[in-house]
Amino acid sequence: MFNYRKLIVGADTPIKIANGQYVKYVNFDNAATTPPFISVVEDLLSFLPYYSSIHRGMGIKSQISTKAYDDARESVANFVEIDARKASIIFVKNTTEAINKLSNMLYDKYKGGIVISTTMEHHSNDLPWRKFNIKYVDVDKYGRLSIEDLKYKLKKYRGKVVLVTVTGASNVTGYKNPIYDIARIVHQYGSKLLVDGAQFVPHSPIYMGDECSDSHIDYLAFSAHKMYAPFGIGVLIGSKDEFNSCNPDYCGGGTVDVVTHDFVKWASTPDKDEAGSPNVIGAVALVSAINTLQKLDMNLIEEYEKSILHYAYNSLKSIPEVKLYCDNCNNCVGIVPFNINGIYHETLSKILSYEFGIAVRSGCFCAQPYIQKLLNVPIEKTIKMMEEHGRRPGMVRLSFSLYNTFDEIDYLVYALRKIINYKNKYLAKYN
Amino acid sequence: MFNYRKLIVGADTPIKIANGQYVKYVNFDNAATTPPFISVVEDLLSFLPYYSSIHRGMGIKSQISTKAYDDARESVANFVEIDARKASIIFVKNTTEAINKLSNMLYDKYKGGIVISTTMEHHSNDLPWRKFNIKYVDVDKYGRLSIEDLKYKLKKYRGKVVLVTVTGASNVTGYKNPIYDIARIVHQYGSKLLVDGAQFVPHSPIYMGDECSDSHIDYLAFSAHKMYAPFGIGVLIGSKDEFNSCNPDYCGGGTVDVVTHDFVKWASTPDKDEAGSPNVIGAVALVSAINTLQKLDMNLIEEYEKSILHYAYNSLKSIPEVKLYCDNCNNCVGIVPFNINGIYHETLSKILSYEFGIAVRSGCFCAQPYIQKLLNVPIEKTIKMMEEHGRRPGMVRLSFSLYNTFDEIDYLVYALRKIINYKNKYLAKYN
Repeated sequence: MFNYRKLIVGADTPIKIANGQYVKYVNFDNAATTPPFISVVEDLLSFLPYYSSIHRGMGIKSQISTKAYDDARESVANFVEIDARKASIIFVKNTTEAINKLSNMLYDKYKGGIVISTTMEHHSNDLPWRKFNIKYVDVDKYGRLSIEDLKYKLKKYRGKVVLVTVTGASNVTGYKNPIYDIARIVHQYGSKLLVDGAQFVPHSPIYMGDECSDSHIDYLAFSAHKMYAPFGIGVLIGSKDEFNSCNPDYCGGGTVDVVTHDFVKWASTPDKDEAGSPNVIGAVALVSAINTLQKLDMNLIEEYEKSILHYAYNSLKSIPEVKLYCDNCNNCVGIVPFNINGIYHETLSKILSYEFGIAVRSGCFCAQPYIQKLLNVPIEKTIKMMEEHGRRPGMVRLSFSLYNTFDEIDYLVYALRKIINYKNKYLAKYN
Repeated sequence: MFNYRKLIVGADTPIKIANGQYVKYVNFDNAATTPPFISVVEDLLSFLPYYSSIHRGMGIKSQISTKAYDDARESVANFVEIDARKASIIFVKNTTEAINKLSNMLYDKYKGGIVISTTMEHHSNDLPWRKFNIKYVDVDKYGRLSIEDLKYKLKKYRGKVVLVTVTGASNVTGYKNPIYDIARIVHQYGSKLLVDGAQFVPHSPIYMGDECSDSHIDYLAFSAHKMYAPFGIGVLIGSKDEFNSCNPDYCGGGTVDVVTHDFVKWASTPDKDEAGSPNVIGAVALVSAINTLQKLDMNLIEEYEKSILHYAYNSLKSIPEVKLYCDNCNNCVGIVPFNINGIYHETLSKILSYEFGIAVRSGCFCAQPYIQKLLNVPIEKTIKMMEEHGRRPGMVRLSFSLYNTFDEIDYLVYALRKIINYKNKYLAKYN
């Protein structure tokens, strides 16, 4: 089997734990961010001596940097399988900025319209849409999206729905949504689809496709820092025609063609939508990560991560004290949310970190409405718990990436069993 | 004299020019962006094995990364001399984002109010304010800011001025504005001051100071990519009290405390103002650059750059065919805009680049109203020129940084004299 581990900066960094010993760091928090590929760092080091201002600089280095930046759009278009001539690839800071930007651009044109989001979204694909008339598609008791409810809402609000926005994969449960089927349904009702690709794009092949296909994806947002290139860049993709018909969200350097005190002629997209000096180094890092991912083959990555996920899910299922929240781990990216009976989620994540060097995340994962639904805890109880104990309902999340191993899962299971067996000792120390 | 040159990545990279030879690249386009310090790259390489998710991750690497990110705010506060307990240091992508964000935050509270900007601003400190009732402070025929006109406008609109916004130093002429005097005047009239520090902060010491001082600066924006840390980060600074009283501009991950479908309780600033995963690596790079700049001493940097500027200005002044636009080079950062009679600005910049390996920028430098004023060309003529010839009035800009040398200026003068002497030959090739 290919050793993905050797591709990652700091994969085997020794970390000191509570007993004073050094252990290999186990990183199960990849849904938050990933370490860089070594190849990304190497490509940056090669590029840096040529880094310079882009577009309007005339120096040779400016031309090298400009070409690198412009080529990055082609590279992204190729990666997500969309025609670079028709699509505008806008570089932003992260997925959250991408979604806010799209929301602001569309709001100018479609204020008062309906946006259909879902109950399983990250706050970043929910809050920015609340200035519209927002409707949430329901999820079932395991948190899977109800396609029936989506259809119901599309039918009910037919002709008024500016946009349907769904996550490609949940950052809480890992559930993948059937985005191409959803696209087909959304287009049947004459609306458009944004996929929040933050958790999807690093783990599965994605095909935005062509407008003439029913199942094409109209808008896509994702972040490089979740795909081994954490250098402050993300992407928003949509059609040039649509973006050119919108005013820019932010304005300033690079967004205009002609300006007087009383008059502005905007440039075309993507320039008008990238106010200020672009993050050229971020773009070079992203391209490098894409190159590596493409060489590795996204299908093989998906397959390997699936095997890790299944192994982890089944291992955890075998521990009676573990409470799992997903119905199963089919159609998921490598994420497992869980709790251990009688241990507060944050306490468990502390014990895993300090005693075992295992990094996880705990809490609500910026998806509070979804967590409220999954845990079935009313908001009043949550607020009371926060006020009285400074605590809130939540979960522990494992999130895997291509460099995680079966051995690491075994080590986690060993750790969990030990924590369960010596619960009182650990609680006395960390609760 | 200290050799700043050895601090810079790629300072002596050989570049191939038109005659096939390799020459040392001369970069006179530092107002657009600067190459990284070697120390910044070294610090990043040390940090990368520990890079991880911040704030809500519990792993040891997450804690290391969180500390690095939070400490970065202290480091910035120290650098700009403001009390970190009272100020909110918000990390953004670049200066343009900082200004747009501030404008959006204030607009929510003060829509309909007056914002006083100036005629010498970069588009990024002009366009974002146009949704307010904007007034422009005049400049004189050399482009220096009229303090009298500022006073006049403050008096005229007393009680209605939400904000006065001026650049610390012009990106076209290099003129520094007397920001502390301006602050005193602005505060006398009960308003607040934003300084666009993009061109100022990398080249001069800056003191934001305390609110109890008349000459304090209320808001500051600047970019790391103009100060040897081009990793996609910039800064917006203002008082915590003011920012906490504003709704966030962008929203999503990290900006909230409690969320249901019908209710949002925002977190405090800076968290509520940094939607999405922060650029931790950018913050580490910025801190590293600040450390290096502080070790070098901003006063010494300012002095050295001043000597380079004076040498360049006087050297260019001695060439009769050179048209300079500044009255002199006093109170300036290291920028010289110029033209050569009979050579289109872009053509000249091409010749300098391809024939001599000298990188400059030409055009309007994202400050069209200022250029229109300095060149005294009516907008109708500009538009006609663009439509008929695809050309527009503009200038060539030299912009220096601490690693530029007197030898490089001599080489530029040699190049300019050669271009003037063989004008027709060069024009035939590049016009």
